[in-house]
Amino acid sequence: MHPDVEIVEFTPTPEQYAWTFGGVAPVMTVRPGTALRLWSDDAFCGRLRSVADLPGASLQMPFVNPQTGPFFVEGAEPGDTLVLHLAELTPARTWGASALIPFFGGLTGTDRTATLQPPLPERTWIYQLDSAAGTVAFEASAGDFRVALPLEPMLGTIGVAPAAGEVRSSLVPDSFGGNMDTPEAKAGTTVYLRVNVPGALFSLGDGHYRQGEGESCGTAVEGAMNSLVLVDLVKGSAGFPAPAWPRMESDTHWTVVGSSRPLEDAWRIGQVEAVGWLEELYGLETLDAYQLLSQISEVPLANAVDVNYSVPTKLPKRLLPTPKPAYDGAHDRLRALARG
Amino acid sequence: MHPDVEIVEFTPTPEQYAWTFGGVAPVMTVRPGTALRLWSDDAFCGRLRSVADLPGASLQMPFVNPQTGPFFVEGAEPGDTLVLHLAELTPARTWGASALIPFFGGLTGTDRTATLQPPLPERTWIYQLDSAAGTVAFEASAGDFRVALPLEPMLGTIGVAPAAGEVRSSLVPDSFGGNMDTPEAKAGTTVYLRVNVPGALFSLGDGHYRQGEGESCGTAVEGAMNSLVLVDLVKGSAGFPAPAWPRMESDTHWTVVGSSRPLEDAWRIGQVEAVGWLEELYGLETLDAYQLLSQISEVPLANAVDVNYSVPTKLPKRLLPTPKPAYDGAHDRLRALARG
Amino acid sequence: MHPDVEIVEFTPTPEQYAWTFGGVAPVMTVRPGTALRLWSDDAFCGRLRSVADLPGASLQMPFVNPQTGPFFVEGAEPGDTLVLHLAELTPARTWGASALIPFFGGLTGTDRTATLQPPLPERTWIYQLDSAAGTVAFEASAGDFRVALPLEPMLGTIGVAPAAGEVRSSLVPDSFGGNMDTPEAKAGTTVYLRVNVPGALFSLGDGHYRQGEGESCGTAVEGAMNSLVLVDLVKGSAGFPAPAWPRMESDTHWTVVGSSRPLEDAWRIGQVEAVGWLEELYGLETLDAYQLLSQISEVPLANAVDVNYSVPTKLPKRLLPTPKPAYDGAHDRLRALARG
Amino acid sequence: MHPDVEIVEFTPTPEQYAWTFGGVAPVMTVRPGTALRLWSDDAFCGRLRSVADLPGASLQMPFVNPQTGPFFVEGAEPGDTLVLHLAELTPARTWGASALIPFFGGLTGTDRTATLQPPLPERTWIYQLDSAAGTVAFEASAGDFRVALPLEPMLGTIGVAPAAGEVRSSLVPDSFGGNMDTPEAKAGTTVYLRVNVPGALFSLGDGHYRQGEGESCGTAVEGAMNSLVLVDLVKGSAGFPAPAWPRMESDTHWTVVGSSRPLEDAWRIGQVEAVGWLEELYGLETLDAYQLLSQISEVPLANAVDVNYSVPTKLPKRLLPTPKPAYDGAHDRLRALARG
Repeated sequence: MHPDVEIVEFTPTPEQYAWTFGGVAPVMTVRPGTALRLWSDDAFCGRLRSVADLPGASLQMPFVNPQTGPFFVEGAEPGDTLVLHLAELTPARTWGASALIPFFGGLTGTDRTATLQPPLPERTWIYQLDSAAGTVAFEASAGDFRVALPLEPMLGTIGVAPAAGEVRSSLVPDSFGGNMDTPEAKAGTTVYLRVNVPGALFSLGDGHYRQGEGESCGTAVEGAMNSLVLVDLVKGSAGFPAPAWPRMESDTHWTVVGSSRPLEDAWRIGQVEAVGWLEELYGLETLDAYQLLSQISEVPLANAVDVNYSVPTKLPKRLLPTPKPAYDGAHDRLRALARG
Repeated sequence: MHPDVEIVEFTPTPEQYAWTFGGVAPVMTVRPGTALRLWSDDAFCGRLRSVADLPGASLQMPFVNPQTGPFFVEGAEPGDTLVLHLAELTPARTWGASALIPFFGGLTGTDRTATLQPPLPERTWIYQLDSAAGTVAFEASAGDFRVALPLEPMLGTIGVAPAAGEVRSSLVPDSFGGNMDTPEAKAGTTVYLRVNVPGALFSLGDGHYRQGEGESCGTAVEGAMNSLVLVDLVKGSAGFPAPAWPRMESDTHWTVVGSSRPLEDAWRIGQVEAVGWLEELYGLETLDAYQLLSQISEVPLANAVDVNYSVPTKLPKRLLPTPKPAYDGAHDRLRALARG
Repeated sequence: MHPDVEIVEFTPTPEQYAWTFGGVAPVMTVRPGTALRLWSDDAFCGRLRSVADLPGASLQMPFVNPQTGPFFVEGAEPGDTLVLHLAELTPARTWGASALIPFFGGLTGTDRTATLQPPLPERTWIYQLDSAAGTVAFEASAGDFRVALPLEPMLGTIGVAPAAGEVRSSLVPDSFGGNMDTPEAKAGTTVYLRVNVPGALFSLGDGHYRQGEGESCGTAVEGAMNSLVLVDLVKGSAGFPAPAWPRMESDTHWTVVGSSRPLEDAWRIGQVEAVGWLEELYGLETLDAYQLLSQISEVPLANAVDVNYSVPTKLPKRLLPTPKPAYDGAHDRLRALARG
Repeated sequence: MHPDVEIVEFTPTPEQYAWTFGGVAPVMTVRPGTALRLWSDDAFCGRLRSVADLPGASLQMPFVNPQTGPFFVEGAEPGDTLVLHLAELTPARTWGASALIPFFGGLTGTDRTATLQPPLPERTWIYQLDSAAGTVAFEASAGDFRVALPLEPMLGTIGVAPAAGEVRSSLVPDSFGGNMDTPEAKAGTTVYLRVNVPGALFSLGDGHYRQGEGESCGTAVEGAMNSLVLVDLVKGSAGFPAPAWPRMESDTHWTVVGSSRPLEDAWRIGQVEAVGWLEELYGLETLDAYQLLSQISEVPLANAVDVNYSVPTKLPKRLLPTPKPAYDGAHDRLRALARG
């Protein structure tokens, strides 16, 4: 981190955990330009520590997926764009956990895709972290299959207070961000979120040590996380309209994340927004942008298990010329600051 | 109304309109057994009064679909069942309004089913009420087609504060009820809602003078409404488990309303709940109840246009023997009180 | 039946059963104006005769839902409208059957809504017919619950050869009709189907002695059926464009049936077609028709279990003025002939 | 290609184009072990050659997406696995074409997602191929934006005759393969398809010079293709059960492609099949396989525009130990033969 950047640390006590986006008083006010060094608990509140800790007995619904925050960003007003650069994501424990929770996940009936079949059994897996090797280890519960998988830390949940006075569970992804569960939210990525309320009131959590695309069983390798996040603000009044849906930028991609049901609607949202972003970046006419998108977009599923499903549309920078910088060049600027 | 029933009247001022379920302080505390005589504004806040009043200029988003309430019900605790008997629904104006709102409705792309096509044009229709004839009049905007349609008053929106600390826009239907937009919510119907927070905090509004099944264009014949509602409570502690999803009972049907996306999930929810209700009413085994449901359920679409879609599953009493009364016989008891 | 109408009888041998729409040589050529008296086997080929006959052992997939036909209609050319008036539907057996088939039905995972849960158990129910009372009797498999339900005969499947050289299983509903499983296909209804190939090649079957809306468990009270059907043809060359999707007309309703997935798309198809039909019948402008539809359409779910789901949009004649007759007045004319 | 492999060439005349899977007589019989050198026309039948060639005037529906084939594979019986190794895919023209077709594509209403909005305008884009640079060039129709994109040849369509006597348009993807439109179908990939009819009757076509994930506008950079394909057969009778859905294997991934609607069902199919494949490859218990899948699967959308949507689930070999070879080691063997 560049030495001029002020770094503020915050670790919530369990009583300070936030369970919703909106509806929670801020834990702190931060100035744009500040770096936050944050600790967040895992989605299970650290209650699954061995394969004997099953969700039914260990979790206290609805108190799952605790968020660290919210933070009140000075000067943030509706219509501004909150900029969060994920400078570092580092596992805060030596193990992660994943679990099958009854009637939750992609390959089972759920409370929404309601069926009369009994649920799949509960089960917990513990993944030991090998920091030196940069891996987490999957161990089969039946038999002796074991495989070390690369550590790929990400934040499943990051968002702001919703619009229209709504308060949403931290399990929900939507236009305010939230529980998108996309591997794109990794170190080196800048997240752009529309500010809906004064101060933006963002929070984050749901660290994943790694995750497949789709988060099939409903849970990733869930783990407490240390996050170093640069906070910035791009003013709508300066001529930068805020995005309707969460956008992300890395050194390699511009990404929009749509969240809805059915899955094709989550996709449509991100695609239409990405058409708009191509128009902004390159001055393209709409149908030209649609055509170009059709030949270049990368669409790795984020989640097909949450209250809304999330689908990123990624535009690969390597295929495109250098455009007018997005959001006043926020990504490159924060990336440089983060690198010191 | 039976003379022993206390009737309390309430008409909100515009400043008292509730725009969400949850997140609003109660306007009043009511005892179970009370009848409420309520006035509710229409979903457009009465701003569409002529065909020249178009939504874009007249409505102030997100301030639409105002609710009357919330009411704190004495003694209501999570796990109880709030019982609301709709004794009378009477139009409170001499006209209703319907409108096409850009990117809203069933036969257009929307913010979710996002496309690149331009929106359909805005348009407003005004329906004059003929109280004597019991009709509202559709008048085509192009040509001279005119037809009087039967007045069939209903409440599009009725619900309680959601669980898990959420606050939802009054435009949303879900397990807490809300904007289900089902013609089943008419005079003579008893609504059963699970209590999620102390006091239940119910509110209602969105009067429709009539509505087709599905609410195709997104708006019914919207009209201010006078509602006479009997409030009661069935305690979970008395051995009556609260329904997971809104249930309704009339002299002719038991109904469950599921709300979700895609539409088949809204249907599945109501169907699985109706299987459960058949088990409760008749002591049927699950698969027998599923089989019986398959041959008797009536499924008139409620809405395919809201944030969640709503599908009622109706069990016709005429086809079934007399069961153990539901919810301690609440419907018959309140129906008798309402009739005086 | 009017004495001038020629009545042709046909009962297929099992070797003559048709398992697809398209891809089958016609069993017979019929002239427009003919009445066909047809026998069709039930969807289980009559193999489920007691509750001990379980689907897995008794059915020979994919040989289910046998159709009677196809019939080559003289003079029928692509773009014409095949008119089939269902004059009489009479049960051809004294019992009907319904069954739970593994991974089939609405309240279970399926081959498409694939999950990892084990299937629900197989089970068969037999419904005894009481012709005098006009009922079929549901008997619970567990316990002694028994209830007589009204006999309401209908055809689950009726359609023509598909366009574009396709051949579809008789289990599929789509724009060619097929396995729509709508209770609208009852005696007194006229079905209008677009002709896709010379001779139309229509067939029918899948008699239901009664069915709930949605056909929840995947099977109705399935029964062999005697059908008396008046066949007619409306020429596209006479200025009557064929409908893109199946339309039906009864004394009480004009109906369009859309079939697709997800369920909202099945609904959208029928609704857009019904808007078009309102325009044709009354000369309404599109958005006026959309508005009127929104306040009058009846949408009882047909099936949410087949390869495509089917949703009828019904326009009630009682709410509307007398229009220009549809399809050259075919319904009234055939209705009169059928009544003799 | 290994010198012992017999290479058979086939270029269809336009009269030999196949428009369906199933329902077409074979153009040729091939022995397992043969290599086919095939030419296939583009999805537009080569009719879009300049930006002035618009779909409405140039295409003759339903005669689009012509297939080369079908080929009768000696010895192939239902229950066997047809193995097609794509050894080489080489553009057969110096240009590719893409187009907007009214009411077709992902970001517009369609015949299924039916709306009342007018269609987007028709438009054609021509992409010039630069063989030396290995690129195709996007040129905006408005303005002077131009960008060279990497050539990444693939086959949009590859499949066998369907089961149950069905005949499906070449525009349809389903369990028989067909129009999956996945970039996984590229040189170096082995495709495994369940044989449904004697001889398998496979065909292929719909070459894409490149495609974004999702094929957003409905068409890729469509181009005539020269394909060198090694044909082989794995007998079910030898203890290798055929896959229910198309599988693919490359040097880097095992992939299953599910196709259905809504998009989540296409995903569920591929996921459940991939769980099964993990069980086969590693002897994992089902829930262990589900858990492992959840942390490793890659899910790049294939198409969200066709009659069914297609979603691949990819298992990356780099993350997993060496398993028992799939399908008797077919991929490695054919890969070695192809490399000569």
